[in-house]
Order: sequence, then C-alpha cells, then structure tokens
Amino acid sequence: MTTEITIRKPDDWHLHLRDGRILHEVLPYTAKHFARAIVMPNLVPPVTDIASAEAYRERILAADGDRRFEPLMTAYLTDNSNGEELSKGFQLGVIRAAKLYPAGATTNAENGVSDVKKIYPVFEAMQKANMPLLVHGEVVGDQYDIYDREKIFIDEILSAIHATFPDLKIVFEHITTKQGVEFVVQADEHLAATITPHHLLINRSTMFRGGIRPHYYCLPIAKRREHQLALRHAATSGSSKFFLGTDSAPHSESAKENACGCAGVFNAGTALACYAQVFDDENSLHHFENFAAANGPNFYGLPLNDARIRLEKLSSPLPSPDVVGLERIHQFLPDTPVYWRVVDSDE
Amino acid sequence: MTTEITIRKPDDWHLHLRDGRILHEVLPYTAKHFARAIVMPNLVPPVTDIASAEAYRERILAADGDRRFEPLMTAYLTDNSNGEELSKGFQLGVIRAAKLYPAGATTNAENGVSDVKKIYPVFEAMQKANMPLLVHGEVVGDQYDIYDREKIFIDEILSAIHATFPDLKIVFEHITTKQGVEFVVQADEHLAATITPHHLLINRSTMFRGGIRPHYYCLPIAKRREHQLALRHAATSGSSKFFLGTDSAPHSESAKENACGCAGVFNAGTALACYAQVFDDENSLHHFENFAAANGPNFYGLPLNDARIRLEKLSSPLPSPDVVGLERIHQFLPDTPVYWRVVDSDE
Repeated sequence: MTTEITIRKPDDWHLHLRDGRILHEVLPYTAKHFARAIVMPNLVPPVTDIASAEAYRERILAADGDRRFEPLMTAYLTDNSNGEELSKGFQLGVIRAAKLYPAGATTNAENGVSDVKKIYPVFEAMQKANMPLLVHGEVVGDQYDIYDREKIFIDEILSAIHATFPDLKIVFEHITTKQGVEFVVQADEHLAATITPHHLLINRSTMFRGGIRPHYYCLPIAKRREHQLALRHAATSGSSKFFLGTDSAPHSESAKENACGCAGVFNAGTALACYAQVFDDENSLHHFENFAAANGPNFYGLPLNDARIRLEKLSSPLPSPDVVGLERIHQFLPDTPVYWRVVDSDE
Repeated sequence: MTTEITIRKPDDWHLHLRDGRILHEVLPYTAKHFARAIVMPNLVPPVTDIASAEAYRERILAADGDRRFEPLMTAYLTDNSNGEELSKGFQLGVIRAAKLYPAGATTNAENGVSDVKKIYPVFEAMQKANMPLLVHGEVVGDQYDIYDREKIFIDEILSAIHATFPDLKIVFEHITTKQGVEFVVQADEHLAATITPHHLLINRSTMFRGGIRPHYYCLPIAKRREHQLALRHAATSGSSKFFLGTDSAPHSESAKENACGCAGVFNAGTALACYAQVFDDENSLHHFENFAAANGPNFYGLPLNDARIRLEKLSSPLPSPDVVGLERIHQFLPDTPVYWRVVDSDE
C-alpha cells in the first residue's frame, strides 16, 4: 500500500535566509517546497526600511535562478523605527510586516527594541495601515530563567500591546509554551501564531539525550514535554489561528559547535516531512493543508497558492539528511522517526 | 590591604581522574590543592573489584611523581556486584566506598545498576561493614524531564534506600536541587552530600548566556537559579552534612564540542578559588575550612590533614585559565568574577 497526500503548495511564514553565500546555499531548500516565505530581516546590519528591504529582495530573487519563489519582505523594528516609512513600504507591497525583536533576545537581535513602549507610535501607524506585527516573544535579561521568558513576555508585554492596539494584526512567532497556545486561543482574530517543526518534535530533554546537542538549540528554547504536547495539539487542532512557520535559521557547523553556540535550527529541506509526520501521529492529516497552506495567507490577506505538492509515506524512516554547503550547515531531523517525504511539486 | 586565609589542606570527595594520558595531564591539578580524593570508578571498563581498584590506584600513584597525593579508591556497582568482595576490599583499605550509577545516568554509566532493588543484598553487606555508598541521584529515562530527575530519584529511590538501610552511610553526590538540600537536612547523620563549585556558580540559564555552552554542561544538569541559591546556602551554612566534591570530569575539547557533547566539567585547578569566592560572597569564609577539609573526613571516619594551604584575595578577577594538555581540556571558570587564588600549600 502506498499512502500519499497532495496539498496546496505551502508557504513558510517565518524564515531566515541570511545573505551572500549562505543565502545561495539554503534558498533552494525553501524554494523547492514553499511558494512564498516571510523573510526575517535580522541581517547585520538589519533590514529596517524600504530601500534595504527592496535591495535584500533583489538579492534573494537573483539567488533563485528560476524565479518561482516569492520572498515576502519584513522590516526590523528598532528604537528609531519610523511608522510612516513602514506604512509606506507596506502600501507599496515592499514590506509585508514588521518584526519586533526585544534587544538581545536572539541571534542578530542586538539592534532590537530596548523598551517596547517607545515604539507604540509605530504600532499605531501599523494598526492604521493594517500592517502585521511579527513578535519574537521573549523578555530579555539574566534575571529571567531561560524557560520562563515567553510566558513572562505574554504577561508583561504582549498582552498590553494586544489590548492597546486591538485592531493591530499580530503574529506571535514560533510559540513554544502552553501559555503561548492559551494566549492565542483566547485572543480575538487579530492575533495568530506560527509553530516550528522542531518545537513540535523535540523538547528540552531531547536537547541533552546522549549528550548536549547544539543542533537542537534554538530560541525560544524547546520547553518541557507538556509544552511540546500543547503545541502539537494546537497545530493539529484545525484552528485557523495557527500556521506553518519553520524559523529555519542556518548556521555553519563551526558556529553551532564552537564559535558562538548560536541559536537556530536549519530545517528548510526537512520541515514539510516533519510537519506531515506530526499531523499523521496526531491522526490529523485532514487539517494539514489548512495549517500549511491556507491559515497563513488568510491571516495576511493574501491569495492561496494554486500549485500543488505531493508527499508520500515511506515504509522506513528518512535517513540523516546531507550537511549543506561549504559552511557544513546541519539539517534538522528529530531523533524520532519521520516516515514522510515530499515527492514533487508542480508550478 | 591583602586578604589571605590559611586553612587545612582540603580533600576532594568526588573526582574523576580518567586513565592513561588524560590521567597524567589532569592529576597535577588535583594533587596541588588536595591531599586526598575519592576517585570515581567509571573507567571503561569500570573499576568493580579489589584487583581493578588496586591496579588503578597504582597507576594513579605512578602518575603522581612526588607521591604527595592519596587516591581513595571506589568500586562501581553493577547488577552483578558482590557484597562480600566489596566488604573485603573495604576492610583491606583498598576500596573506600562503592558508587551507585543508575544505568545510563551519565558519562560511562552504561554498566550501572538497572534496578536498585536487585543490589539491596550488596547494601546490606556494606551497611554491616560500615562502608559508604556514594550515589549519582538521578532516575534514567526519556519519560523523565531532565530537570526533574534528581527530585524523582529522591522520592522513588533514595528515600527507600535510606529507610531500608538506616545505618548505611550514604553520600548523595553533587546535589543540584533545593529538594536535594532539604532531603539531606532532614535525614539523620548517616546521610551527607557533596556540592560542586560549578553548581554553586552557574545555573541553567548561564548555560545558554550568549549561546549554548557545552563546557558548562554536566550531569546532573544545572537547575533554575532558585536551586543554585539553595545550594549556596547549604554549602556555606556551617552544616557538617555538606562537603567539598568537585566532580571534576575532564573531557577533550572535541568530545565536549563535537563528538559526544559529553557531560562533565573540568575544575580541578580552579575549584578551590571558586569555592572560596562563594563563601566570600555569602559572608561565610569562617565556614570554608570545615566544608573543604573537615566535614568530609569526619563523615568518612578518616583523620584530618595536617598540611595547610593559603589563599589570597586579588584586586582583579582571575583571568581565563589555560586549556590543558594535548586533549585541550577546558578549565572551569564561571562568567561571574572570581577574586581568589591559591598561593601555596605546605606538606
């Protein structure tokens, strides 16, 4: 027996493509499986305005030889962000959303926002323009336990933003806790969340199974198994508030293991198989297409893709994927078996 | 002003010396600051009987050129341990204690005990001989969150051992939780605990400050800051139930960062300075000598050392210590400043 599913071609609503050689090395993995992606702006220096977003978009298109892939550009919020510039970029279709990084929260977040209240005028302008706010939801500081940072962010910062700007579209990115799930479920339709494949498939104990495993290290860090289960339930529940965002974030092998111990998991090539496995495990493959290809565009107000992609269930698990490029970027696979693979996709 | 303290030369009641070249590389760091050490038996294959303990002891003495250091040997408990052999080794003075590793709990624990009840007859014999049982206190298994394993071990295993063998001397090794501290405090005088310098100086968030840091990874893993504070309070409280055990555990740089992500912190050369800093921070330097040089031998029923060691407080923090030997073993130092150093020690 062969089990196959064919779904609308998905989009990735949270992606790091980097720049230069790494961009060229990793882009094909995304372009093969995803029609569009929300491209995160945390370059060094970050993408903060129309000109830099336009230039980055051109570099991505140039790296994508056959021009099938559509990058959806974002701007990085700083203490000096200009709401007018962002709204103008949104109206022009150049900047699709703005990303809030609390300063120091994750890789290349040094230039992020030091006090969210300072940029409330920017949120005001974004709300007026109907421009989505994308949020890295963690407080920053040694006084906060690394496993508490998302839930404290919800209580102290995100709740206030949502209450103050009730019509502002917010994507709570890469949620990792049951408190994150509960916050999204109880919020109104202006708030949604992305969930990564790795947070559905690993938990904080997996990170240390058989030794410390830097390639499973990302931010927000994977939490206790009960949080993983809450995420799996949310993603596969059929709720339109949750959608696919891989947070695929390539780092070289040496950066992961030696130099910086950088946070980030590169999953662009394995994400779709991993998500399918989760939906299959949870007997929810009938909800997979909406999670992967409908909830995201509906939230962003964009058309659904016409192209289709076909996945098949294998009789033996996927082998370890290749290490990618000169930087030796490791591809994510959980240590539980994944039986799905992408067969092909049409235009 | 110069601040100095002179104390009785300490012993290390929990030490991994490894074997072969690494033994030769790391032993001088311990022998310089410690008169004796309880040497853990988790070699490959493990030290399990009189003959292998005697042979390992000879290799250690041969590596210690000037014969100042006294290794106190231990035996590794397995499902097949023989209580008579262990008691005999204890009576001969060759084996000073037996170490319980739940199978798979940490580095080289593959041959450990699969079900503690199986070796209750061995505990019976040890109790009769007055031979100490040293315990790695973590349950093993993917069903247990990595941060819960010590407290579950207390509830499910250690409490039962202590209740069943009330006269068995037990050292609860390298405790990492407030539940560990509370269990030791409420237990009678047959139960004591060692505390490592790293568990006094780091917590689980430190392990990820600025990126994942394999050189801060050990087992039991560092817990939430409130547990770190409970350990600091216990160590510096003046209670005779807590004493110095570094759990110094060398691994090569490549093993820590690449190959296995091995658990273990090498602190033999920096431990005493680190402990002094903690006692100084807690305004408890008057309790330092008992923690470092009296509580341990008193619990084991061994004489105190006559030699002395002198430490001084510096005006600027210790710099990063050298990487050791051909294996490039990283020495522990916290990312908070340590102002103490060992000046010298007499014979």
